[in-house]
This record gives sequence, structure tokens and C-alpha cells, in this order.
Amino acid sequence: MLKLFWGRGTCARATHIVLEECNARYESVGLDMKNQAQTLPEFLAINPKGRVPALVTDDGVLTETPALLVYVAQLFPQADLVPFNDAFAFAQVQAFNSYLVSTVHVAHAHGRRGYRWADDAEAQASMKRKLAQNMADCFTLIEQQLFAGPWVMGERYTVCDPYLFTIMDWLESDGVDRTQFPTLDAFYQRMAERPAVKRVLAQEQAA
Amino acid sequence: MLKLFWGRGTCARATHIVLEECNARYESVGLDMKNQAQTLPEFLAINPKGRVPALVTDDGVLTETPALLVYVAQLFPQADLVPFNDAFAFAQVQAFNSYLVSTVHVAHAHGRRGYRWADDAEAQASMKRKLAQNMADCFTLIEQQLFAGPWVMGERYTVCDPYLFTIMDWLESDGVDRTQFPTLDAFYQRMAERPAVKRVLAQEQAA
Repeated sequence: MLKLFWGRGTCARATHIVLEECNARYESVGLDMKNQAQTLPEFLAINPKGRVPALVTDDGVLTETPALLVYVAQLFPQADLVPFNDAFAFAQVQAFNSYLVSTVHVAHAHGRRGYRWADDAEAQASMKRKLAQNMADCFTLIEQQLFAGPWVMGERYTVCDPYLFTIMDWLESDGVDRTQFPTLDAFYQRMAERPAVKRVLAQEQAA
Repeated sequence: MLKLFWGRGTCARATHIVLEECNARYESVGLDMKNQAQTLPEFLAINPKGRVPALVTDDGVLTETPALLVYVAQLFPQADLVPFNDAFAFAQVQAFNSYLVSTVHVAHAHGRRGYRWADDAEAQASMKRKLAQNMADCFTLIEQQLFAGPWVMGERYTVCDPYLFTIMDWLESDGVDRTQFPTLDAFYQRMAERPAVKRVLAQEQAA
């Protein structure tokens, strides 16, 4: 039995949506991250990084969104969310996820978590001032170069889509108007209509 | 035919080593990154992100180290560098690579590329002051929690090993003494003895 630890509005939403898309049986545990539940000893015993998502499996605990997305897709091949048998197409999925985790999510984190990379408040404020521009630059690259449409990889819906949708939800609070990216905004609306997405958002609302 | 674009001492070394471990036929193109060759129009036409590694394949261009490592391993199954048929073990490989790309490499980049996240020199200097501590924290977690030994994943040599080796080479210039991590330092020495690693380092020296 899988058990997903998530926090409202975090990147864990991507894995959560993929579990729902796969009609997986799983236990869902929303952490109260406003009260720093991810830093308590009982959670650190599960994930010493003190972050969500964490996925408890019968074989052990897994972390890191790009790993979890592909793992869940591999457990539920009938959902066909990753093109495992086409090395190039699979690598494109992986490259997109890697760009989101290492560039886009990182750019976003400089808005509220600048303390990870600098101790003084002025440096953190400086990072915050560059946030909107950095996020807009990332989404310009995604819209113009990386996004095939109607889904990230083209006609085929993959794990990249819940991940991009999850991060797009951060744009407004990062000071970026989503509608300046019309193709991606239409994608966002399309994602919001999917039953799996609605179920996850309802769980987050109820938490 | 594969063509790898790399720069001396960059994270592209990981993919380069994996190509050598697989005895792949490939064309090797070292970019003169001291003179910003990665920002010239002819390279931006290959990778609009202006970064290495970039791997040109018969199907198109691929980027992002975690994607490339798994792609090359999938092309050369006889080298057996990724446990594709064990979803949990594969996810562990992916999680480790994801941690390196999104946390460790990012921590390192704040030393010399703080301009990505803040415009003013004082903020960039502040990031630089936190660099050694952040890198040491990452490697403490790796040594104590993530590294199974003698290779990252245990008895089995995987694509995680060239990637960790590549990033370990940055510790000294980041102000971290590698020998404070004895298990990882022994791993580093073991990696340096591998013929594939020696061939790549010789290519970099000659460039």
C-alpha cells in the first residue's frame, strides 16, 4: 500500500494528481506545513530532508518529484503516463521534469525560501525582487520552446502535465500574470477540468 | 550517431563518463566555456538554454543531466547502469540524481552564478558566504543517509556514481575539504581509477 505525504499547494500536488490519474489505492496524508509539520521528528524519520512529497512504499520511502512521477507511472502501466519503451520520448519527459525541478522550482523558491542560500535579510529581499522576472523567463522558454501542445509532450498526456500545472499555480503569488502565456493558460484551464485534478484540489481544500 | 557537447569541469562530465562506460560511439565536442562558447548563436540553436550538456541524437537534441544519464543507459542495456526492471530501485536512482541536480548543483551554483537569482553584488557575495556550509550540509546528508557503498546504490555501479563523482570535484573550490567525508572520499578515489573516468579526464585536459 502506498502512502503519500503532501502539503497544500506544494509540488507534492503533481505526484498526488498522478496517483489519482492511475486510480491508485493509496493513503493520503496532508501535513500542516503552516505549522512546520515537515520538520517534526516523526516526519524526519520518514524523510530526513524534511520536505514533501514523500511516498512510503512496501519497499521503503521515496522522495523527489521527478522520481515519484515516473515510479507511480511504472507501477500503473495501464494509465500509460510515461513512454517507457521509446528511449528518446522518455528522455524528453525526463528532461522536462528535470528543468522544472532544478530551474523553475528553484527560481520560485528564491521568493520565500531565500534563507536557504543567504543568511542576511537584504540578500533575501534582493532575490525576491528578481523572482517575477526569473519565473516569467522560465515560462517564456516553456511556452516558446518546450511545450508541444495540447499537452506538454504533444498529443500524449504524460506525468509532465500535472507537474507543469502544479508549478503554474505559483505564478500569481510570484507576481506573474499567467494570461501573458496564452497557450499555457489554456493548458492550465484544460488541466483544471480533469476529474483527477478536481479530486486532488478537493482533498487539499478539505485539509 | 550521438554527439555530446560538454565543457571542462562542468556537470556534462557525468554524461561523458557514462558514454565511455557504455563504450558508446559518439562525437565529443568540448566547448570553450571560458570564452562563453555556450552563449554563441550556433550553440543556442542546439540548446536554447545555453548550457551543457547537450546530446544530439538522430531523433533530436536532449538536455538535462538526469535525463541524459538514463537515456544513454537505456541505449546501451548491456552496460547495465540503471535497474529499469525494478521500479523501486530505479526510483532510488532517479531520486538521487534529482537531489544532485535540484539541491546540490543548485547550492554550488550560488558560489559563482548568484547573478541568476539576485542582481546586486552584495547579495551575490552573501550567497558566496553560505556556499561552503550548504555544500557541506549536502554531503553530510549524502554520506550519512543516501550513500550505500561501495557505490551510491550499494554493490551495483549505476549512473549515480559518475554524477556524484563529477559534483565532488567541485568541493575544493567551494571551500569544502573532501576528506572530512571519509566514505565519500574513498569512493572518489575508486572512481578516479576507472578507465572510463581516466579517458574523460584526459579528453578534458587535452581540450
